[in-house]
Amino acid sequence: MTNTEQRIRTSFGAQGLMATIGAVLELVRDGEVHIALPFSNALSQQQGFVHAGAIISIVDSACGYAALTKAPPEFEVVTVEFKVNLLRPAIGNRFLAIGRVQNAGKLLTVCTGEVHAFNASADAYKVIALMQATFINVSK
Amino acid sequence: MTNTEQRIRTSFGAQGLMATIGAVLELVRDGEVHIALPFSNALSQQQGFVHAGAIISIVDSACGYAALTKAPPEFEVVTVEFKVNLLRPAIGNRFLAIGRVQNAGKLLTVCTGEVHAFNASADAYKVIALMQATFINVSK
Amino acid sequence: MTNTEQRIRTSFGAQGLMATIGAVLELVRDGEVHIALPFSNALSQQQGFVHAGAIISIVDSACGYAALTKAPPEFEVVTVEFKVNLLRPAIGNRFLAIGRVQNAGKLLTVCTGEVHAFNASADAYKVIALMQATFINVSK
Amino acid sequence: MTNTEQRIRTSFGAQGLMATIGAVLELVRDGEVHIALPFSNALSQQQGFVHAGAIISIVDSACGYAALTKAPPEFEVVTVEFKVNLLRPAIGNRFLAIGRVQNAGKLLTVCTGEVHAFNASADAYKVIALMQATFINVSK
Repeated sequence: MTNTEQRIRTSFGAQGLMATIGAVLELVRDGEVHIALPFSNALSQQQGFVHAGAIISIVDSACGYAALTKAPPEFEVVTVEFKVNLLRPAIGNRFLAIGRVQNAGKLLTVCTGEVHAFNASADAYKVIALMQATFINVSK
Repeated sequence: MTNTEQRIRTSFGAQGLMATIGAVLELVRDGEVHIALPFSNALSQQQGFVHAGAIISIVDSACGYAALTKAPPEFEVVTVEFKVNLLRPAIGNRFLAIGRVQNAGKLLTVCTGEVHAFNASADAYKVIALMQATFINVSK
Repeated sequence: MTNTEQRIRTSFGAQGLMATIGAVLELVRDGEVHIALPFSNALSQQQGFVHAGAIISIVDSACGYAALTKAPPEFEVVTVEFKVNLLRPAIGNRFLAIGRVQNAGKLLTVCTGEVHAFNASADAYKVIALMQATFINVSK
Repeated sequence: MTNTEQRIRTSFGAQGLMATIGAVLELVRDGEVHIALPFSNALSQQQGFVHAGAIISIVDSACGYAALTKAPPEFEVVTVEFKVNLLRPAIGNRFLAIGRVQNAGKLLTVCTGEVHAFNASADAYKVIALMQATFINVSK
């Protein structure tokens, strides 16, 4: 495990919200992070599908940690802003958020994210959300 | 209680995620909805403040229900997309998300949202997030 | 005229695009800037209304100059990103973009913008666009 | 030339703004459109680089026409909203905006766009802008 991955796993483990919703850090590599979320009734919106807030929580975190893989060791990464399109309802038994760095400057890092919805009966997935996000490096 | 408020309270009550994070529907009026969230360690990010995902969950819901106050009775409201700026860390013992309709068309409704952070020792609050969001009316 | 207004008027005068599209700097005050644009066929989209690109050019500039009113004298302001909703077609004989600072940090400034469309026959206007934008202070 | 390409070329030719800024429609294919823009002092911001408004005008159009390649013949496409990150100054002698459809629903189409900056001395380009945009199909 690299120092970066160790650092991100420690940070992820300290996030109460990720434990509360049941999110799992699945992959960390240079410029890309994956976070998975199993379906749970505790995360539902009024129709029983997963609430956009839970989906956005994992893709924001995936993008933020992807940005962190590009940050100098003495810096933290903070979300400046993001925009997300919700392409279809979050129907599935498992969701995977993928965050990728598109451009890492000295101060600002821009990432894109997407969320895939999986069903038990198929290998296929549907893209349910697309994100474009800005992060800033701040001294620890 | 108006029909609209009743409808929104029923929908809010059916959202598992709102119960999981401890959110409370505080105000419903024509074109404006307030949702409150008390601090909890279960919602933290790695520094112990509230995770952006929880903050965004309540302001997305506040904007969506504000949009619903303008929708014809036979329609549901679905989030198309939103953009949010996180102005400062979510430090406080209570947070209030306010969603307001800016423009309600036949199909699309545009809302703005803001989130206030409160501390025990003061009446004052800080604005910690600003949202601009698009919703679409869909037949039930 | 304040130093800030003088500085903004000089910068605006140096923007070739603002002259090309016929934009006029109408008001500069602390945290708020107005830019007007008369209708011209040279700015049209395919239906003869004003192209979103022209509308966005003036509201991006209005927000950026509003941010500049809050920047220390030794800094320039650069657009990091923005999001804009186009609420209705840009129909009118005159358009007014209003940029306002919502939060000015040490490095980042968040503004909101709106564009009003006016017609000859009425004092009334319609809001045709809403923007939420992020700017960064950079050393000159 | 396909009917779709013919339709888009006719629409592009009717846009006064595209002629005013000197934009050229370079490629139309299913789900993807390219628009080029040569440098001109008439498009400058205060430092002499190309103004973000001109860059955004071509990438908004490229995304919109990409969306139009997916729309039924009896529909027009209207920009609902977009978000753009400006990654670096628009320095170059030629710019190329690429719009691509990411998801085409019955009513709404989501596109991503990017803008490349080219210099005379090199084949290489830099990505200067990233867009994520929503369009709606409307009856003609």
